[in-house]
Formats: sequence, structure tokens, C-alpha cells
Amino acid sequence: MKLFEETLREIYPGDKDAEKKAWDRLNGLTKPIGSLGELEDIAAKFAGITGKVFNEIEKKNIVIMCGDNGVVEEGVSSCPQDLTYIVTNNFTRGITGVNVLAKFYKSDITVVDVGVKKKIDNPKVIDKRVMEGTNNIVKGPAMTREQCIEAIEAGIDIVEKLVKSGYSILGTGEMGIGNTTTSAAIISAITGLSVEKTVGKGSALTAEAFENKKKVIQKALDVNKPNEEDIIDVISKVGGLDIAGLCGAFLGAARYKVPIVIDGIIASAAALCAYKLNKNVKDYMFPSHLSAEPGAIYVMKEIGLTPMLNLRMRLGEGSGCPLAFSIIESALYTINNMGTFDDANIVTDYLIDYEGNKVIN
Amino acid sequence: MKLFEETLREIYPGDKDAEKKAWDRLNGLTKPIGSLGELEDIAAKFAGITGKVFNEIEKKNIVIMCGDNGVVEEGVSSCPQDLTYIVTNNFTRGITGVNVLAKFYKSDITVVDVGVKKKIDNPKVIDKRVMEGTNNIVKGPAMTREQCIEAIEAGIDIVEKLVKSGYSILGTGEMGIGNTTTSAAIISAITGLSVEKTVGKGSALTAEAFENKKKVIQKALDVNKPNEEDIIDVISKVGGLDIAGLCGAFLGAARYKVPIVIDGIIASAAALCAYKLNKNVKDYMFPSHLSAEPGAIYVMKEIGLTPMLNLRMRLGEGSGCPLAFSIIESALYTINNMGTFDDANIVTDYLIDYEGNKVIN
Repeated sequence: MKLFEETLREIYPGDKDAEKKAWDRLNGLTKPIGSLGELEDIAAKFAGITGKVFNEIEKKNIVIMCGDNGVVEEGVSSCPQDLTYIVTNNFTRGITGVNVLAKFYKSDITVVDVGVKKKIDNPKVIDKRVMEGTNNIVKGPAMTREQCIEAIEAGIDIVEKLVKSGYSILGTGEMGIGNTTTSAAIISAITGLSVEKTVGKGSALTAEAFENKKKVIQKALDVNKPNEEDIIDVISKVGGLDIAGLCGAFLGAARYKVPIVIDGIIASAAALCAYKLNKNVKDYMFPSHLSAEPGAIYVMKEIGLTPMLNLRMRLGEGSGCPLAFSIIESALYTINNMGTFDDANIVTDYLIDYEGNKVIN
Repeated sequence: MKLFEETLREIYPGDKDAEKKAWDRLNGLTKPIGSLGELEDIAAKFAGITGKVFNEIEKKNIVIMCGDNGVVEEGVSSCPQDLTYIVTNNFTRGITGVNVLAKFYKSDITVVDVGVKKKIDNPKVIDKRVMEGTNNIVKGPAMTREQCIEAIEAGIDIVEKLVKSGYSILGTGEMGIGNTTTSAAIISAITGLSVEKTVGKGSALTAEAFENKKKVIQKALDVNKPNEEDIIDVISKVGGLDIAGLCGAFLGAARYKVPIVIDGIIASAAALCAYKLNKNVKDYMFPSHLSAEPGAIYVMKEIGLTPMLNLRMRLGEGSGCPLAFSIIESALYTINNMGTFDDANIVTDYLIDYEGNKVIN
């Protein structure tokens, strides 16, 4: 509880002065003002995080929170529950989607057991087990408030250690059969949107099972009545341990001033929770792709972020993070290395911004 | 004329058998069916181009077609016309946006003068000059049919040479003040969409200049009456040399069976022309980002393609190609290296696709 409260108190907005200096640099590069779009926004936002105009990424790490969800007994997933255990182990064997993409883009991964039902006997998986999977949310709360905060603090703790080990950007991933169910429940609880809008088919569902999934989520909301003003209440009642752990990762990243990538619907739900706990967290977040799960777009709108990739991905695991890392690195490389108007022998008296205003350089 | 006609005759669809084999491989990888979204589509489409399931990219090259547009005398751009000459030279000095992003992602570039007004004295720029900039399209055709085909053949020829030099993927870029004007004119001419829908502010325009730009394009269409059934008529009347050259690059890529990335609104207009000349060209095209220019989305719809990146870029130069190359490479790396369900110790009797149909593996 102490770590959680201390962290919430020690999250500050990005450095607006450094961000302004980054924009001055960007506006002097040899291109129409703003024409590199999101790449410019990324470079400026990154400067706000580190306080420096020129940045490089040293080491990259994707934090993968793994946990089971009691709600799977309601038939919300086409996958057997023990896939959580199997795939969590497989993250350490280099064969999953996130492994391969992380290897291609030279990112490390950190696998965390925050509550897989069957205990994982694998030294490469960090043991932060809060409980043996959550309780079934149609019958009552997923976990207690204390368990929720314990999982959040696991996320904060891991981020602190990674930052101290020299990682300069983090990603978020997860594994937990049933976690698109808990994510949709959280998004509906916080935004007030109907389950029709927030629930997707997860890994895949028959039409009948999809209808059931929506009913289950509605029932979980009706039974638990989560209070949207109290994020710990929302996560502990209708969320999951992976979501709580990732929420902690976002809070930790903001506290320790490292950029963190939101990847997929589960991380999006966790990001929304972190943002509602402290709005400054937004200044440290970079969304990767827009998940194919329908709730994702509402989270992005609520926080006010735009994903950089449009790849209809819905694997989870943090599999989109390596691609986002690469785009962010390309944005940093551009601000660091592109020529200025002076270098380019271009007189800039004609320069106007996209709105047609004269730009003085 | 001979090269153009021969090329059009020798463009075939992608290899559907290799594509099917790629899908079989993808559906056996340890992930929900289809959950890597566009990355899977990219890997399968690439297999269709090369005829092989497993592919690697050796060398990458962005073909940048540079040419001037007579229509700039109508005040359609806030930039002075000599920027075409200056930036074309700067591509060989490593300081432009596409240079920096290409360097980050280890891509080469090929700079082609297909008709810059002032002759470029630079051995690093390939001389394929058709004319000293086009004629003003509000007064008559931009160029003759013969000049248009000469520019198209320049694109085909350059692609042939690059493929013979071992480049296994190509990108498309351009430089030519006034070329968002000619692109919008081409898109309106071919799709029948009003200029209100296709015209954007290019590098930047005041509100007044933007209104003028739309009027100029409408006038060019009214004066020239391009026949949308005759693509050479459309390009030669309201297009540009850069667009013609890029159209040739797309045709050449399809003929010589290499994937080619569409980047930006000018390349999109050229891609639309190539597609209308031979629909099979689509099987070789990968769109990078969705340009901030409004016409881009209509081109994507017309061809039936979805851009992978959502970065509000509008610099042109082919600056989005390096990012797209990287995503395509990550897709190839994934199909080549990800574990199968067997590797992952996962029994697959539960597997269904996203529509809920049973999948037999």
C-alpha cells in the first residue's frame, strides 16, 4: 500500500520546456512544418519524458504479466484455461509471437507470474503470485482490494528494477485466458459504455459464445456494481491480476520517467486505470497498434492518444511493442540526425504551418 | 512504347498456391488463428510474389522520382518552385527526411531526375529527363502521350536494373513542388470524386490559397477533360512526370515480381494509375502509411488496400517506406521463426477461426 500511494504522489507531468525545445528543433528541420506527423509528436513527447531534446534508446524491455481469470468457467473463451500456464512457460522458450518480434527488434522481455492458477516452476518467470487465479466475477469480486494493490505494486516494483538496470523504454504485454472479458468489463465500468460497444471475440468465438460472453460481462457488472470513481474498486471487482500488474507498470514508468508502450486491449484497460488514478501518466504513454478488440478505440479516445500502427493485431502478449519501439527509435533518430534548413540551403521566408500561419525560424 | 506495352502484357497475378502454403504455415503457428492480423496478410502476400513460403529481404531501395510542375505558376503551393531542384540535390547529401529514415532502416535510395526544370548537375542523380518540367495544366495538357510513356518507361527501366542488382523490395518516393495538385487532379479524374474530397493542403496553405488550389484543379479538369478509361490520357493531361515515373515503377515491380511500397499521396495516385492499367499490379503493392492528404483514403479503397501505419505523415519523398520495409521484414521474420503448436506443446482441438468455424490443423 505504501509503494502504491507513494508512487501516485510522485508522478509529475512531462517536462514542457524540453518538449518546447524539441519542437523548436523539429520546426527547423528541412521539411514542411509538422509534415512528419506522429514521428514529430513522438520525438517531442519523448523529450518531455527525459527532459532532453536529443535521446537514444539503450535497452528495451516488454513486461508480460501473466495471470488466470476465474470467469473462464462461464465459457467466455474458446481456449482451455491451462493455455495461460503453457504460454507463460513458452515465453521463456523463445517461440511465441512476442518472442519472435522482440528478437527481430532486439528487445528483451520480462515474464511475470502475477497469479497463474497452477504455480510455474521456471526460474525465468518472476514470481509475483498474488493468488491462484482470480475468483469468478459473475459470483463476486475477482479479488480483494489488498490483492489488487499487491498486484499493482508488483508492476511498480518490476519497472523500478528495470529502470535501474538501464532499460530506457518499456512495453506492456500479458497472458491470461479470459482477459479480454475482464478488460471489456473494466472499460465498460469506467466509461459507462454498453458491453455491446466494448466486448470483442478475443482469440475467437462462435456467434453463440460471443453472445454469452456479453451476457457474462453484463452480469459481472450488475453483480459487483463497481464504482467508476474508485479505480481499485473497479479492478478488484471485475478486473484481473494481469490488468492490475500492468496498471502498476504504467504508474511505475511515469514515476521513474521512462516511456511505456500500451499494446493490446488488456494493456489498454490497464492504461485507462492508471490514467484515471493519475492523469499525468498520459505523458509517458505511447500506444502501439489499435487492437482489433472494439473497446480499444474508446480507451484511446478517453485518454486522448492515437495508435501508430493499424495492423488488426489481436494476439496480445505485447506482440505489438517491438514494432512500436522501432517506430519510436526512428523518430528519435530523425530529430537527432535530419538536416536543418541551413544545412539544406533553403531560405525559409516562405514557411507557413499547416493552418497557414507564418512561421518565424 | 515497346517496353511499356511489353511490361503490361507480362504482369501476372501473385502465386496463389504459394500464398495458400504460407497460410497453412501461419495457421499452424502458436497463436489464435489470424491474430497477427496484417502481419500474416503481409507474409502470405509476399509468398505470392516470390512463390516461396519462406522469404528474406536482402537489399531495399526507394525510387525517388523528381520533376517540376508547370501548374505552380497558379499559386497552388506555398513553396518556391526551385525547392524541387534543391531537395533533389539534397537527397544525395543525406540530410532529408527520407535519407535519415532510410539510413535508420538500412535502405538505399535511387534519385531520378525525370524532369526537374533546371538541369541537375549531380552524378548521383539518374538522368531520365523527359522535359524541363511539365506545362501548366490549367492551360492544356501537362505533357504529350509520348512524354508520359517515356516517363513510365523510365520507371520500368530503373526497376529492372534494381531487381538485377539484387534489391528484393522497392519503395516509391518523389519530389516536385505542385505534385499534390496533380495527384488530386488524377484521383478526381479517375474516381469521379469532387475536388472537395480529394484536394489537401500539401506542405501547407493559407485558407485562401487552399480555395484557389481547388479551383485550379477543377479548372485543369474542365480544360483538359481527361478520359478516365484511358490512363495515359489522364496522366499526360493533368498529371506529372514524377507520377508517370512512379506508375512505371509499379508496373516494373509487378513485371519483375518484387514487392513495392506505396508511400504518400503522389505514389498513391501513381499506384492507382498502374492498377487501372493492369489490376494484377495490386498483388505486388504494400501501402505504408495513410497520407494526411484526403485523396489517399479513396485510392486505398479503390485498389482495396489497407495502410499499415497511421502516422499523419505528409512529407512525401518516400519517407514512410523505410518504416513499412521494417514491418514487412518483421512479418517475414515471424512466419520464418515463430514456433508451431507442436513446438509449443499445445493441443489444437479447440481451435476455431475468428468467425467461429472449427479449424483442422
